[in-house]
Order: sequence, then C-alpha cells, then structure tokens
Amino acid sequence: MFNFKYAVGIDVGATTIKLGLIDNNWQIIERRIIQLERYDTPEKFFHSINQDINSMLSLRGIAHDDLTSIGIGLPGCVDSVNGMVRDLTNIRGWGEVNVTQNMSKITGIPSYIDNDVNLMTVGEWMHGAGKGCRDMFCCTLGTGVGGGLVIDGKLYRGATLCAGEIGHIRLFIDGEQCNCGNKGCLERYVGNAGIVRRTIELLKQNSLNGNILLNMISNDYNRLTPKLIFKAAKNGDEVSAFIWKETGYYIGVAFTSLVNILNPEKIIVGGGVAQAGDILFESIIDTVVRYAMPVATKKLKIVPAQLGEDAGVVGAATYSLMRNFNQESVK
Amino acid sequence: MFNFKYAVGIDVGATTIKLGLIDNNWQIIERRIIQLERYDTPEKFFHSINQDINSMLSLRGIAHDDLTSIGIGLPGCVDSVNGMVRDLTNIRGWGEVNVTQNMSKITGIPSYIDNDVNLMTVGEWMHGAGKGCRDMFCCTLGTGVGGGLVIDGKLYRGATLCAGEIGHIRLFIDGEQCNCGNKGCLERYVGNAGIVRRTIELLKQNSLNGNILLNMISNDYNRLTPKLIFKAAKNGDEVSAFIWKETGYYIGVAFTSLVNILNPEKIIVGGGVAQAGDILFESIIDTVVRYAMPVATKKLKIVPAQLGEDAGVVGAATYSLMRNFNQESVK
Repeated sequence: MFNFKYAVGIDVGATTIKLGLIDNNWQIIERRIIQLERYDTPEKFFHSINQDINSMLSLRGIAHDDLTSIGIGLPGCVDSVNGMVRDLTNIRGWGEVNVTQNMSKITGIPSYIDNDVNLMTVGEWMHGAGKGCRDMFCCTLGTGVGGGLVIDGKLYRGATLCAGEIGHIRLFIDGEQCNCGNKGCLERYVGNAGIVRRTIELLKQNSLNGNILLNMISNDYNRLTPKLIFKAAKNGDEVSAFIWKETGYYIGVAFTSLVNILNPEKIIVGGGVAQAGDILFESIIDTVVRYAMPVATKKLKIVPAQLGEDAGVVGAATYSLMRNFNQESVK
Repeated sequence: MFNFKYAVGIDVGATTIKLGLIDNNWQIIERRIIQLERYDTPEKFFHSINQDINSMLSLRGIAHDDLTSIGIGLPGCVDSVNGMVRDLTNIRGWGEVNVTQNMSKITGIPSYIDNDVNLMTVGEWMHGAGKGCRDMFCCTLGTGVGGGLVIDGKLYRGATLCAGEIGHIRLFIDGEQCNCGNKGCLERYVGNAGIVRRTIELLKQNSLNGNILLNMISNDYNRLTPKLIFKAAKNGDEVSAFIWKETGYYIGVAFTSLVNILNPEKIIVGGGVAQAGDILFESIIDTVVRYAMPVATKKLKIVPAQLGEDAGVVGAATYSLMRNFNQESVK
C-alpha cells in the first residue's frame, strides 16, 4: 500500500496514552502504555513521547531514518488540517497547541493528528472489519458513544471537522438534558453510565428477577459496571438480559435513522460495551432490519470491530502514512 | 462549466412531468408540463417525450445536434448507474425498465437518470442556494419529506443508492407506524398529511384560538391544507401559528441529529411546506442552534431553496451534463 519501513501510532485515550511502533506488515512490534496524568504541559508530552519513540527504535535496532511518519489520535475536536488542538477533553490546561508542528520538530519525523475515533475508524477500515468498504460507519460504545465515517472511499470529517457524533442523535424527543446541549441523546442511555443507571432503575422496580446480578455486587449499586451486567446476563440474570436487549434496541433505533440517511454498506461496532457480544448485536441487527427502509439494508452488514484496543494505534500509524504519501482517498 | 449549447431536464413528479430546454446560461428557454396519467406504458413515455423534445427544439430553431444530453429525475429508488427503474412510486405498471437505454435510443441523445430529489439537490447545489458548497443537505418538504446529500463536492447516493431519507428518521421512539417500516418517522408529523392531522387535533382540543382558520374552511376539516394553515397563521390564528412553530421544532430536532452526524456547512429547505417561510425557518433554526453541538453549527447555514419549482428540471439537465462530461465531482 505504501512504500515504508516503520511508522508510529499514538492513541491518546481518557486515562492512558498508547504508543505503537508498526512495521510494513501492519504489526505492532513495540508498545508503550503511559498514564496520561504525567503530561500536565504540552512540552512534557512532546519531550517524553520523543524519548519513548527513540527507546522503541533503539530497542529494535531500527535507524531513525527508517521511521516514515507519526500519527496521533486525540480526543475531542481536532483541527487535522492545521494540526491544532484547543482545550482537549481529557488533558486540562493545554489550551491551544499546534501538535503537528511541535511533534514534527522535536522528532524530526512528519507528524499528523486527527480525532481518536476517526483514527480508530481508519484502523478498522484499512486493516479490520471495514477492509474494502467505500461507505461505512464505525461506532464506538463506552463511556462516550461516538463514531467515524468513511464516505466514498475517504475519511469524512464534516465542515467543521466534527462529523460522526451518533451519541448525540436524539433518541427520546422529551428526554433528559445532555451535556452536549441536546436532549434525550443516545449516549445518555447506552453509554456506560446510562447502562448502569437503567439497570439500577430496573432492579429497583423489581419487575424482573435480578438476583444473580445483585449477588455479584453484594447489593451495592456502586459496584455496577457494564462488564458485570454482561456476566450476569450470561449467567441467566433476567434484569441484565433485558438491559442488553434494550441497549441493542436503542442503538438499533439510532442506527435506523443513520441508515435511512446515509445508506452505508457496513456499520462496525467496537468499544468496551460492544464486548457484550451476541446478545447486544442480535438486538441491534433485529431492530435495524425491522425498522430501516428495506432497500437501505439490502447490502448492509453490522459487525463487531476486529482490532480491539489496537485499532486506534494502528489507525493512527496508517493515517500518518496516508497523509505523508498524499493518499487519503482509496479508489 | 461545460462546453455545451443545450440540454434537456425532465422532472417526473407525483402527478405531472415537467420538461425544460436549457441554454448555456442555465436558463429554461422552453417548457412543457404534461399530466403523468397519460403514460401508462414506458413506450408511450419514451415516444411522447421524444416528440416534446423535438417540438421544443424546432420551435426555437435549434438543430438536434446542438442538444448535448438529457437528464431525467424519477421518484423512488432509481439505479442511476445502470439507468434502471423498478416499480416506480407514482407510475404503476411499468415494472423494470432501462430508462437510460430506451431514452438514448429513441432520441439519439445521451440520457441519464437519477432520483428526483437528488436532481433537485444538484439544481440547488450548482445554481441555487448551495452554490460553492462542498458538504450540504437539501431537504424537500411536501407530501413526502426527503433529501439529497452532497458530500466532499459530489452527490452522495449511498451503498444501495437510497441515501438522504431524512423523512424516516425516528422522531418519536414510540410513535405511530410509518409505511416505510419504521415508527414515529419525521414525515408522519411534518409531511402535508401530518401537518393537517396535527392541526385538526389541536382545533378539537380547543386549547388555542383557531377561529380564523375554522372560518376559512367553513368548519370543514376536509378543506384543510398546509397553505391555508399558513394563511391563517399570517392572519393571527393561534392554532395555525402554533402548528408552524411545532413543525419547525420537529424538523429542527431531526436536523440536529443530522448535523451532529454529518456536520454539513449548509442545509437547504425547499418544497411546498417550505413556503410557510419565516415562521417555519425561525423555529427550525432556533431549534438546531439550541440543540446541535456548538462546534457543528459554527459555520452552518439553514436557508430556503432558491430555484423553487425549477430545481428539478435545471438539476436534471445539469446532472446529465456532469455525467456526459464525466465531471461528477466538483473540486
């Protein structure tokens, strides 16, 4: 695809930074995971990341010149064109920084940035569940609910570089206020916190048997996590099974709107919540097949992400090469 | 833009067919409007349209060779790539027909087809409210509620050529069944029938003063049309004013979801219902500005369509030239 030896992908998450050194078989041959809290200033970030990159290269005996490019995925609104970030979601106090310029300068390697979910999308598109797609949506389910779009063989960012926010589709017209400014947003119901809140409400209603789950958390609601709710569902807990089916229904209703507007060929679903697997996917797919326009679902596939936690790192490295070789559009 | 003298645009609507002969200043210099019911077979359609085209040319003393291409917009699911239609929405009994092949053969002029709303979108994009846009959505409000998408400087059709169906975004999660298969669709509430139904419900509730409107229809609900409801609102009728504000709110909620996903730079609103003007547009814009993510509305403009009833004809002619000169993508 590209004439390169090595590239670096960096995925800046909510609490950690993942670094990966990638060879031309798209394998991560060296990794680093660093706590995000270490980087209270951008200077520290650039300096330390540069050291980490040099450490990965020297450990593998790779010449600095054999590193082609560096890609960085950052949470929040990223100006990928100019390389700027402003007031990042998870890194307080950075203000306005030109990440691309600083990173390229300190490392001597061409560096590129984009939104983290966009780069996860690139990863799945080029190397995972989205290989060969022209029109696809990659959805990530976790604390937040986001997504990235590939349209006509190219990552689509939108007029102000913030496309893909499916978490802020309005699901309930008179629903609760969301931090984004909208009401009744999908994310309020199927993000981690929403899943836990809906589970607590259902346990309190006592209309279904939730004893297995209650035993697992020793009746302490504070211990509830989507992961435990998934385990309980697997063990036959009725409340938990209902919550996963309902979660799939809510996501399916939002996907139906997206499918009727965008008519993609594939929707890829990843992130922690997607680990719930079959019970969730079956409910999502049933809902979309039932409610979306038949012609829009004729070729549609809704599938789990394949790269797991590596999608962001691999996607960031791939994206940096696409930018570097000026091949952002795939024919 | 293109090296041509004349092109023909044909807009097949719900009850009529509009033909337009277009010169290289993009002016419609000759028109025909024909009742759709005349064409019970495709053969009649091709034969008669060919005669109409020849009649327009000879009336203007234009040589057949100076006609470059013919574009036809058809309602429903149109296979624009292969030129096929299958079971058109408004023309019963046609079955499966290759419109492009037949039309090109009988006229001797390269002919192209697409969905009518897509071609209205092309008209507004190239000559109307969307001039110069890279990413825009063109929404048409009338009996149906539909839309067309321009993404990255190109008409976007989707994986199975049916993108843009904003009328079938789910507005009410537990809303009424729609013919499309989904529930609570936007179109059920803001299509012509939905507006009339909501108005009758409100008149019966009697919570607002609807006397002006009731006088206009002599208390006969069967006479209600969006046009009359608009006139009544202008004359100070409370029920009618409320209905238009609510209609704008519903459309605005759907646009908010679209804006958060697609982040377009412009939304163009046309069709009969859009004639309601300021009272409708103010409510749409207020809703989107209030609820969409601030970053997504930074550059967004929501504006009325400019070409009115001509958008489909001009768009069809323009589209045929884009296809003919292989310039579907605008840089």
